[in-house]
Amino acid sequence: MQKPLILVTNDDGITAPGLRSLIQFASEIGDVIVVAPDSPQSGMGHAITINNTLYATKMTTIEKDGANAEYSCSGTPADCVKLGLQEILDRKPDIVISGINHGSNASINVIYSGTMSAAIEAGIEGVPAIGFSLCDYTWKADFSQSKGYIQKIIQEALANGIPQGVVLNVNIPKLQTNELKGVKICRQARANWKEKFDKRTSPMGKDYYWLTGEFELLDKGEDTDEWALANGYISVVPTQFDLTAHHSIQQLNAWELG
Amino acid sequence: MQKPLILVTNDDGITAPGLRSLIQFASEIGDVIVVAPDSPQSGMGHAITINNTLYATKMTTIEKDGANAEYSCSGTPADCVKLGLQEILDRKPDIVISGINHGSNASINVIYSGTMSAAIEAGIEGVPAIGFSLCDYTWKADFSQSKGYIQKIIQEALANGIPQGVVLNVNIPKLQTNELKGVKICRQARANWKEKFDKRTSPMGKDYYWLTGEFELLDKGEDTDEWALANGYISVVPTQFDLTAHHSIQQLNAWELG
Repeated sequence: MQKPLILVTNDDGITAPGLRSLIQFASEIGDVIVVAPDSPQSGMGHAITINNTLYATKMTTIEKDGANAEYSCSGTPADCVKLGLQEILDRKPDIVISGINHGSNASINVIYSGTMSAAIEAGIEGVPAIGFSLCDYTWKADFSQSKGYIQKIIQEALANGIPQGVVLNVNIPKLQTNELKGVKICRQARANWKEKFDKRTSPMGKDYYWLTGEFELLDKGEDTDEWALANGYISVVPTQFDLTAHHSIQQLNAWELG
Repeated sequence: MQKPLILVTNDDGITAPGLRSLIQFASEIGDVIVVAPDSPQSGMGHAITINNTLYATKMTTIEKDGANAEYSCSGTPADCVKLGLQEILDRKPDIVISGINHGSNASINVIYSGTMSAAIEAGIEGVPAIGFSLCDYTWKADFSQSKGYIQKIIQEALANGIPQGVVLNVNIPKLQTNELKGVKICRQARANWKEKFDKRTSPMGKDYYWLTGEFELLDKGEDTDEWALANGYISVVPTQFDLTAHHSIQQLNAWELG
């Protein structure tokens, strides 16, 4: 039987330890091709490169994690998926996996996430896709603890398929293997970031800002990704790119827009 | 009675004719503050600036369209909304409006849209928000044809509020006023972009790509935004940022992830 073809990407860049781990885990399951950004793209949301040129460079020196081939791309995570599917791969991959992100993409973070934008791009193009994130922002994060779960999720997705119009947003708490309680299918928790801008003055006398903020959970539900993560579970949120708020259509029809 | 406070932004940049028109239309309804990108941000999706500094410069020369004040910001549309709400406005605005975009943000375009990311950011922060787009990519597009409809939509949103967790994605066909048939509340049509990468070689001998593509409508429904636009209607899609595919949760619970 032909091995599954797996396209791997991320948003932290091709050298990120989280990507290197995901390549290792995936190469035990199938043939792996990597198309990943040449520099960190965190916070890029679903950006694409339309007013600039895109480069993709085949890497010859870092194929040590089991990938069949690796390409470093000058674009965003969504660009990497587009370029991978259209130009680099010989055939449609069986799955696209993105990550492992250094830091949570649970709850409202999905909106800002380059990791998830890659998965969503694949989903739009009809390829099953999963984004993986570990709730640990540091470069030295230990991705090995959840290896078994990550491989199981990929294998189940390959075996069962993923519903059309849906991609998976997988977040992993920062715990040791024996502390992980299992996997929960969840909904996205309601939350936002309470922005705080750190206002400073440049040496040239011009005011500027750094965007900082505090995560604010607005949801007490026990069926959310945030609840799962806080209680030791890996969260899996089926995530869609039909953004229609179907329940609001009737309400808006009452407006007088004649 | 206090006039409504309206925050106006866009993704084509502070000098774009579509923004200038929206400022004019909005200033007949309320007090307008503009916080818009200093350069075009099309295709930026929901990007935010987290690894770089942000500037916001009060413009003193271009306040000719009726705004109370205008600020040019070095960031993305989502940054503009965050900065506007947090640092620039004295009080919470009654509504945030984004656009008028030069080009459609209907259907799957909502995912890549900087215009809509600004509206979504406002929605996340609990402020009613609308993104407006005209299906005409040119800089010379005629935004005046739909003035009455745009003002009516803003006024109805101010009068009725917008359901929590929802923002409006308004798209306008390129038609004369007397050809516009009215407004339809719609769902987002299923579609994707069939990418075609235009591969070239630089003068230095390095291969590079331009991302191009063709829009591919996958949806025959007559309740979609694409149908409405093709039939002379302004489309209004209630758009949510809870991306959970609630209908898939049960199906995924059958996976063996033990």
